Amino acid sequence: MLAVDKSSSDFLYRQVIDLIAANIETGTLRPGDRLPSLRRMSKRIGVSVPTVRQAYVELERQRRVESRPQSGFYVRGARLNELVRAAPKFRRNAKPSPVRGRSLMDRVYDGLYQPDVVPLGIANPCMAKPAAKALHRAMKRVMARAEERSLAYAPTNGEPGLRRQIAYRLLDTLGSRVEPDDICITNGGQEALLLALRCVAQKGDVIAVESPTYHGLLELIDSLGMLAIEVETCPQEGVMLDALQKTLDTHPVRVCMFSTTLCNPLGVSMPEEKRRQLAEIIDARDIVLIEDDVYGELLFDGHRPKPVEVYSRSGRVMTCGSFSKTAAPGYRIGWLLTAHYQEQIRRLKRSYSCSSGLLQQLTLAEFLASGDYERYLKSLRPVLQTNAGRMRSLVAEHFPRETRTSNPVGGSVLWLELPAMVDSEQLFDQAIAAGISIAPGPIFSPCQRYRNFARLSFGHQWSDDIDNAVAWLGRKVHELAGA
Amino acid sequence: MLAVDKSSSDFLYRQVIDLIAANIETGTLRPGDRLPSLRRMSKRIGVSVPTVRQAYVELERQRRVESRPQSGFYVRGARLNELVRAAPKFRRNAKPSPVRGRSLMDRVYDGLYQPDVVPLGIANPCMAKPAAKALHRAMKRVMARAEERSLAYAPTNGEPGLRRQIAYRLLDTLGSRVEPDDICITNGGQEALLLALRCVAQKGDVIAVESPTYHGLLELIDSLGMLAIEVETCPQEGVMLDALQKTLDTHPVRVCMFSTTLCNPLGVSMPEEKRRQLAEIIDARDIVLIEDDVYGELLFDGHRPKPVEVYSRSGRVMTCGSFSKTAAPGYRIGWLLTAHYQEQIRRLKRSYSCSSGLLQQLTLAEFLASGDYERYLKSLRPVLQTNAGRMRSLVAEHFPRETRTSNPVGGSVLWLELPAMVDSEQLFDQAIAAGISIAPGPIFSPCQRYRNFARLSFGHQWSDDIDNAVAWLGRKVHELAGA
Repeated sequence: MLAVDKSSSDFLYRQVIDLIAANIETGTLRPGDRLPSLRRMSKRIGVSVPTVRQAYVELERQRRVESRPQSGFYVRGARLNELVRAAPKFRRNAKPSPVRGRSLMDRVYDGLYQPDVVPLGIANPCMAKPAAKALHRAMKRVMARAEERSLAYAPTNGEPGLRRQIAYRLLDTLGSRVEPDDICITNGGQEALLLALRCVAQKGDVIAVESPTYHGLLELIDSLGMLAIEVETCPQEGVMLDALQKTLDTHPVRVCMFSTTLCNPLGVSMPEEKRRQLAEIIDARDIVLIEDDVYGELLFDGHRPKPVEVYSRSGRVMTCGSFSKTAAPGYRIGWLLTAHYQEQIRRLKRSYSCSSGLLQQLTLAEFLASGDYERYLKSLRPVLQTNAGRMRSLVAEHFPRETRTSNPVGGSVLWLELPAMVDSEQLFDQAIAAGISIAPGPIFSPCQRYRNFARLSFGHQWSDDIDNAVAWLGRKVHELAGA
Repeated sequence: MLAVDKSSSDFLYRQVIDLIAANIETGTLRPGDRLPSLRRMSKRIGVSVPTVRQAYVELERQRRVESRPQSGFYVRGARLNELVRAAPKFRRNAKPSPVRGRSLMDRVYDGLYQPDVVPLGIANPCMAKPAAKALHRAMKRVMARAEERSLAYAPTNGEPGLRRQIAYRLLDTLGSRVEPDDICITNGGQEALLLALRCVAQKGDVIAVESPTYHGLLELIDSLGMLAIEVETCPQEGVMLDALQKTLDTHPVRVCMFSTTLCNPLGVSMPEEKRRQLAEIIDARDIVLIEDDVYGELLFDGHRPKPVEVYSRSGRVMTCGSFSKTAAPGYRIGWLLTAHYQEQIRRLKRSYSCSSGLLQQLTLAEFLASGDYERYLKSLRPVLQTNAGRMRSLVAEHFPRETRTSNPVGGSVLWLELPAMVDSEQLFDQAIAAGISIAPGPIFSPCQRYRNFARLSFGHQWSDDIDNAVAWLGRKVHELAGA
């Protein structure tokens, strides 16, 4: 067992949690094992008994351990199986293909808006209450201050005050190279992806995507009449660069659309050294990279990695961000960062939707400037981390033993590999009939791989409904696996 | 002189105004002519002296007449010249062409967001104050009632409550055939046009447009790599159906994009009989009609004509509406009405921008349901009508005698034919340097016709700045015409 670092700025009890979690992950502590008593642990690692207790209670809340009366704390449930590879039996000679499976996506979306559904199929976190209070306050201030103006058209590329705030937030990761004029405000991250892709690619062009990847990206590629080619990912570091090189050697890829930070559905990030290498590949081959960075603020540890844009010298990297996954999905405010293509992007933006909502832009600028956004994110991240642990424990407890899960370092989704005979579309159909939405595996691939995979969201305020829904899903997967 | 109709629900003084205006228009009363005295007029048409006085005073406010002390009221300035045809020397053998002039459009838009510019170049009315108060009230009610929910994603095709309200408003003109599910909420009218066009046409397809037409339509056609062909219009009834037939005989037109109600920049509407004929042409030739109906609520007389959709049996008519020209441009809420293509439209909407802003949708639903929208429109229309009269009188007073103007029946823009030697791009450049924005003629045509035309907006709260700006423009046009 490792020691805690008292000079670290992390809370001691969090270090104790990490310590025990690490021992569970490596198998040093196994399901059913008793944790050291509070006093023994306190002595061993040199922190106070109340701090150890705080850590144990939090681990219990995360469902990683359970307390047995008069006895102590025990490691809970079955051992988690981590994904070994993101896609089993990946055909290296994958070909560019049109996107299939739009009708399944239709059904997934329809399911999300059914009343009273337990929404495990949606990716955005829903810790809306604190954000709502602060945002509504900011909006009322804006309405009082700019009564008539707030109804007018925003400039095509967005309200300058919001672009300044976004540039300011990006200072930490991007340095002084971001000018507010390099940013174009869009109708959510999705429109940013649309404008970026339309700007550099045409009908029939080949677009490389991660496998698995965000279904909204695939819908977009399909809508524009382009072809997608999948690049294999590893479940710890995202897209595999050797696989990418092979794809680029073999196919006339024009654009890569990757999430290097918290790719969806895997929830992992590319290490810095690989980002550097990716930039070199892009630059050397004259390819455009569109980075989907909409989860960038949601790493559990709060440390946002530098986007690949920083390492590229060609200028052919565009980064798409959004407030939909953090503050307010319904505001439909995202942005597209590019110095190189800004003029073309503005024209496209104007012809596609004129400009984005001004009142929301003014409100978000106020929300960021007041520090409320940063405070909200600081409160959101540990909730998401706790929920991730809970969700993984529940899956380990209720799903068949051979189920494997991703190990997200942020965001709000968990990717599951179910037993090979389970058809996740069937699971989706039965779940939605039972009032539970999930995201079935095939929608994350242009050629409908991942038949026995599914994505579950842990981004919601936790409730008994979620406990019960996951238990129900586990039973159903047992059934389908046995059939 | 005609008589007034005491059984009519129109105010008597308004009828008196119309009567005198009609006599001015026909030339019965000419500039410098003295109006009948209050007493004589009162006797002649059988209304009270105060009513006649009210009408004369209003006509003076509209700058159509002036009062001379101790003498009476006189018809003002030069006689207005109406447009004889929308485009002089229209080449009947026009060919489909890519859209030119995007850089001039860029400059026009840049000009609109310069601080302290007199914004005669923008088309939306800016009577924002009453709308702002009522909308802010509605929004605060929504925030209180749906605190967290108001931040969430709206359904792809829009908030059902707003779709119901829109369908309800369309009952009068469209009858019971409109279902809320036939409506898809969009990011303003512009996104509705985008989705409609992308749904039925591809790169390289030929799109028929009115000449002159809305520049945003041309930008859109250009962005999608399509070609535009212009169809001649007449300045009283919009697009000419014989010209349309010839165009369709000669070119492989796939889609017509027309504004049959208050086309922009002419501001006139197609009569009912012509709408019926247009529907027949569309149906017979298997062509899609996209109706840009964003000004439909702004006819001065408040009587919205039935969209062509009503007369078509093919279902291949899509109608685009918006709240941008009435209540709140900055909300970016429009809609697309189509039963036939609704499924494709939803998919496109999802892949292009997920959904539109929920808080604004909930607010507009509340605004409509409360009756505030209707009340606001009732107060807006007479202001716009008065402003139209003022703007025309100012042009007649300050511009060269051979200047011709459109005679808008609604909306907020006036189309001017300047003397032949005037280059409106030059006028634009000099005006913007002097702090006045105008819309130069060439942006209203794919091949940059209308060099000596310009569009002026009368949609703003009237002010001395506007008087002075139009006078300045008149002097400048005199200069350019003399050069």
